[in-house]
Amino acid sequence: MQYHLNGFKPGNYQVPDEAREPYPEPPIVDLPTEVDVLIIGTGPAGLTMARQMSEFSDIKTCIVDMEPGPLLFGRADGISCRTMEIMEAFNSSEMVVKETYQLKQNTFWEPDQENPANIKRTHKIADARAGLSEFTHGIVNQARLHELLVDGMERSITHLSPHYSRELLEVKIDDAQTQDINAHPITATFKRSDEAGEGKIETVKARFIVGCDGARSKVRKGMDIRLEGDSANKAWGVMDILLNTDFPDIRVKSFIQSKDHGAVMTIPREGGYLCRFYVELDLLGKDKRAADVKLTEQDLIAKAQKIFNPYTLDVKEVAWWSIYEVGQRIAERFDNRPAGSPEDVIPRAFVAGDACHTHSPKGGWGLNTSLPDTFNLGWKMASVLQGRSEPKLLSTYGTERRKVAQQLIDADRELSKLVATRPTAGDNSEQAKVDTAKIEAFMKRQSGFVSGTSIEYYPSYICTGQENQGLATGYHIGQRFHSAEAVRVADGRSQHLGHLVKADGRWRIFLFGNKQNPTDSTSDAYKFIDFMANDASSPVQKYTPKGTDIDSVFDTYAVFQQQDLSMHDLHDYLWPAKGKYGLRDYEKVFQAQEGNDIFDLRGVNRDEGCIVVVRPDQHIASILPVTAHEELTKFFDVFMIEQK
Amino acid sequence: MQYHLNGFKPGNYQVPDEAREPYPEPPIVDLPTEVDVLIIGTGPAGLTMARQMSEFSDIKTCIVDMEPGPLLFGRADGISCRTMEIMEAFNSSEMVVKETYQLKQNTFWEPDQENPANIKRTHKIADARAGLSEFTHGIVNQARLHELLVDGMERSITHLSPHYSRELLEVKIDDAQTQDINAHPITATFKRSDEAGEGKIETVKARFIVGCDGARSKVRKGMDIRLEGDSANKAWGVMDILLNTDFPDIRVKSFIQSKDHGAVMTIPREGGYLCRFYVELDLLGKDKRAADVKLTEQDLIAKAQKIFNPYTLDVKEVAWWSIYEVGQRIAERFDNRPAGSPEDVIPRAFVAGDACHTHSPKGGWGLNTSLPDTFNLGWKMASVLQGRSEPKLLSTYGTERRKVAQQLIDADRELSKLVATRPTAGDNSEQAKVDTAKIEAFMKRQSGFVSGTSIEYYPSYICTGQENQGLATGYHIGQRFHSAEAVRVADGRSQHLGHLVKADGRWRIFLFGNKQNPTDSTSDAYKFIDFMANDASSPVQKYTPKGTDIDSVFDTYAVFQQQDLSMHDLHDYLWPAKGKYGLRDYEKVFQAQEGNDIFDLRGVNRDEGCIVVVRPDQHIASILPVTAHEELTKFFDVFMIEQK
Ligand SMILES: Cc1cc2nc3c(=O)[nH]c(=O)nc-3n(C[C@H](O)[C@H](O)[C@H](O)COP(=O)(O)OP(=O)(O)OC[C@H]3O[C@@H](n4cnc5c(N)ncnc54)[C@H](O)[C@@H]3O)c2cc1C
Ligand SMILES: Cc1cc2nc3c(=O)[nH]c(=O)nc-3n(C[C@H](O)[C@H](O)[C@H](O)COP(=O)(O)OP(=O)(O)OC[C@H]3O[C@@H](n4cnc5c(N)ncnc54)[C@H](O)[C@@H]3O)c2cc1C
Repeated sequence: MQYHLNGFKPGNYQVPDEAREPYPEPPIVDLPTEVDVLIIGTGPAGLTMARQMSEFSDIKTCIVDMEPGPLLFGRADGISCRTMEIMEAFNSSEMVVKETYQLKQNTFWEPDQENPANIKRTHKIADARAGLSEFTHGIVNQARLHELLVDGMERSITHLSPHYSRELLEVKIDDAQTQDINAHPITATFKRSDEAGEGKIETVKARFIVGCDGARSKVRKGMDIRLEGDSANKAWGVMDILLNTDFPDIRVKSFIQSKDHGAVMTIPREGGYLCRFYVELDLLGKDKRAADVKLTEQDLIAKAQKIFNPYTLDVKEVAWWSIYEVGQRIAERFDNRPAGSPEDVIPRAFVAGDACHTHSPKGGWGLNTSLPDTFNLGWKMASVLQGRSEPKLLSTYGTERRKVAQQLIDADRELSKLVATRPTAGDNSEQAKVDTAKIEAFMKRQSGFVSGTSIEYYPSYICTGQENQGLATGYHIGQRFHSAEAVRVADGRSQHLGHLVKADGRWRIFLFGNKQNPTDSTSDAYKFIDFMANDASSPVQKYTPKGTDIDSVFDTYAVFQQQDLSMHDLHDYLWPAKGKYGLRDYEKVFQAQEGNDIFDLRGVNRDEGCIVVVRPDQHIASILPVTAHEELTKFFDVFMIEQK
Repeated sequence: MQYHLNGFKPGNYQVPDEAREPYPEPPIVDLPTEVDVLIIGTGPAGLTMARQMSEFSDIKTCIVDMEPGPLLFGRADGISCRTMEIMEAFNSSEMVVKETYQLKQNTFWEPDQENPANIKRTHKIADARAGLSEFTHGIVNQARLHELLVDGMERSITHLSPHYSRELLEVKIDDAQTQDINAHPITATFKRSDEAGEGKIETVKARFIVGCDGARSKVRKGMDIRLEGDSANKAWGVMDILLNTDFPDIRVKSFIQSKDHGAVMTIPREGGYLCRFYVELDLLGKDKRAADVKLTEQDLIAKAQKIFNPYTLDVKEVAWWSIYEVGQRIAERFDNRPAGSPEDVIPRAFVAGDACHTHSPKGGWGLNTSLPDTFNLGWKMASVLQGRSEPKLLSTYGTERRKVAQQLIDADRELSKLVATRPTAGDNSEQAKVDTAKIEAFMKRQSGFVSGTSIEYYPSYICTGQENQGLATGYHIGQRFHSAEAVRVADGRSQHLGHLVKADGRWRIFLFGNKQNPTDSTSDAYKFIDFMANDASSPVQKYTPKGTDIDSVFDTYAVFQQQDLSMHDLHDYLWPAKGKYGLRDYEKVFQAQEGNDIFDLRGVNRDEGCIVVVRPDQHIASILPVTAHEELTKFFDVFMIEQK
């Protein structure tokens, strides 16, 4: 798919260039006066939170932004493998896959030793992320990702739409009410900025607020949360351009270092013509901000042209540009509870995304860390609001995601040094030479982190069972459930098991069978299934609200080694009757695929089998032996609320 | 993706069951008074014609249906591999792939020899179509396919929408004007049937009319075209149902034959719960129509229940049902020219789809033959209207598609006999026993026809070069260009070459290079490319309108065996400058993929290479040696009009 030949045009890429219009500014609708969840900001963090909440008809959500409408240009553009997986969980991966530039290769350029005024390719390699996921790292306008999330919200059961032209002025948290889960302790005040309503004040009361309001977050400031780390001290110019060049690697992601003029990183973009350039700028003075750097896009182009010598850059259009500052900062806390609070103090206000971690754009981590922040928070919030889990579950958001943010800050600090040819404020060394081999080594070592696929949460009551890790060495407890294909027994279709874990708030229990015949009622698999289905102490019996489908909280799948199974011979919990008609669900049982055996791919012990417990955010909560019935119940007893 | 658990709900499957609404009835907009192309009928044939026309901003199209809005229920549901490929040509395959039931297996059931009152599975086999296309045969509500086509029309440059509530009353063709290509010899009269406009008459004048108005086509009758063949004499009941059963193959396509009660064919449907049943009914009397068979859905269910013995069928909901007649009929001509007219008599009225061929639903061929009818006609019509091709090109529609229709009728006649346990009117034999082995053999033998992938057009001036077939044994002249993957040189991405052939009216020229180095100006590949780019007699020079992009009529791709090429070393016609900025297009050069070599997959001669000329409808027009410059020009000279 090609676009932007005759100039960059934001909007829905399924509409051809000549017909594409930017998304229209949405109509103004009054804010609700009272909601369950109030979200500030329609960036990736806010929209992901809203998209997740939109799945639940019993939760009232409001998402607000001060801009007059959706973002159109610029900002982040890298969609990591893990972000793609999350879009699949939201049932919206297809257009991301289809429309993005797919990053397959990297090249590295350094001064030519024979003629150091020229750059010369040192090597071209396959992108280190290849194979870490069934998805490829893609590059696309951040605005398009926003649109796909908004589309999903609008199509959902709640038909949720963002409210624009509302600036958050103030957030008040009534401390007297925070520990009453049913109270609305949050009061947020907004000022309208649209022409018709200019200056009008609106107030929203909420049970919870999530500040996804970016680096200068007012929610964060209102919660008095300090940022730790360096503020910006190094600026990079970034621009999305349409250009002609004789540089041979213009359609490959390239790290380019010149002898005397600094460095450039180029990233080809969606549609075949657009390209993003990151251009290294000079050191910022101690108290300077990027905004103080008085440069224009022409300066960025001129600088890039010098670096590219002997190649020419003929820039035809600058679709977007910005001066972006490098600085690694992280919020000391991710929620409103005072530092050191016990876990059962209920947090009512949260910060996510750039509101709690900022860093350089080098690794493409901004969007790809912000979106999983609220993907982590969303299901917990829903589960607490629906009375299924104890409110303490909400405090795990901060512990889990702050660790990731810290890793991000560390990685970004390292990478920023590697790709900059000039010293940063804290670094008193001489002008450094970029060693592209070091960048390559970094990308290789950090590929799991860069792709988001190896993000791992600390052991906790929702990441347990480390002693059973050996039962399935390819499913890392705390990391996301790494998808692989298996064949559906009922119809022979091959299915990515990871894609069954949709963002619908349900837990998935994957039973990997051992060598015993699962139709035999004395087999471990049969006994486990019978326990799940019929034992009064099973999580299904305890935690599934009466009157709902049997898989409404725990969605159980079985994967067997046997190749000759028939659905009707299996325990009927594996083809349960559901819905008003009691129709049978035939899509829960799989067998290993010949030549692509999931037991081999994920190191599942064939003699013992295992149970893999997968959280609603696709992370692996636990691995258990197939016989560990009681342990499974205990796992959920820690935080779930018994249903009637 | 699962849907319909609590009852069948038509509409957009990307909306969850609880939130899904049927498409709203579109607003009434006055018909235009004069158009280029007037299409009657919004079935698969009409919508495909309209979808194709919607790509061209200089063609004025109007599509009309007598129904008050889009179809919601029933009718066809099989989407053949070839139909999927065509949806990909319209840039809309993703949702078809995602939403359809994917047909992987078939089972066959016969009376149990030990207890003939019961049925018993004889065997289960992989579907014979596997591997014929990169797509799998899918099953989905026909209405959903319609919606995807309409979505595409609305997103296109012309933002075309169908007009509903208009019944075509009469078509007049002014014979005095038919041979003047610029005239509007067609006058069509419509009656409005919506409440506000009830009875209002509208008249549209058109340069061409395409009758896609189904089996009782008024356009066909207006053209005085006779139907040849049997009219119905055998009725089948068809129903889309939600059911519970202990029949073990309910999620697999099954042919079931009972001893005394006839036959049933079951086809699992999208969403995991729905199922289609075809139930054999008794012979119709000589002059009886299906409408005369006074049966209800309860009769169909009762009959199916008898056939399924010893299994039970507990039908919870009938989403749609119909009595469908078997009869094979074909129109004697597919356009308004008198039989035996020379090819340069310009046809102005056409029939397509069920309007010119009807048959049983057994093979799932109705939709899958109707849609390619107008996919064949569409590009020819556009090319003539745009003044790029001689009007005679339009007469090839009838010759090409009538052959396919004839094959269809023949195949359907054969299959209908195989799957019916009772004699049809013309067949005086005793009650026949279905031999499921024969059905299996038929499906195997006819898999290319059933999937649509082996449909082959007669040799003609747009299907030539049979003497060069040996240069690429896997690309059959007259058949569709069978997609395979190759790696894009500029960015290392793997790309299905067939998916480059979009339905935009352009011709594709695929150059498969031989062993010579294509960067060497004495190589055959280089010389061919230089001829295309610079020779005054090349098709590119002769037939591309001045002032348009160099690939606006002929889109040339090169596929090389060499693995070490760099775009900038190749002839610059292969990375041409386009658009208002003269931006370079880097997406035209490929290399064979290791382990999946397109030269091997498609039997391309490595020593000689070849040129594969692909029509705008993806069918292979010709294969030529790389050195056959003059022959390539001659090919296009036969029907194309030189541009200034
Ligand atoms: C100018 C700019 C350039 C960037 N360039 C790059 C880049 O080149 N590469 C890269 O990887 N990343 C870049 N980023 C970062 C990337 O866009 C972010 O990491 C990512 O968007 C973070 O998502 P978020 O949802 O946390 O916050 P954001 O996307 O920043 O969204 C915050 C939202 O909150 C709204 N908001 C803020 N305050 C209020 C308020 N008081 N009331 C109401 N609404 C409010 C804002 O309007 C905004 O829509 C850039 C960001 C910016 C701002
Ligand atoms: C009741 C029924 C059941 C079917 N069941 C099956 C099945 O089980 N399996 C299967 O494979 N196929 C089935 N088919 C056939 C399948 O739907 C068709 O082969 C396919 O739709 C043909 O497409 P088409 O575009 O040629 O015509 P159609 O889809 O028939 O579309 C014709 C359109 O023209 C419109 N029209 C007709 N006359 C006029 C007029 N005078 N003015 C304005 N508009 C007009 C009609 O309203 C209709 O929308 C069924 C068809 C019908 C009608």
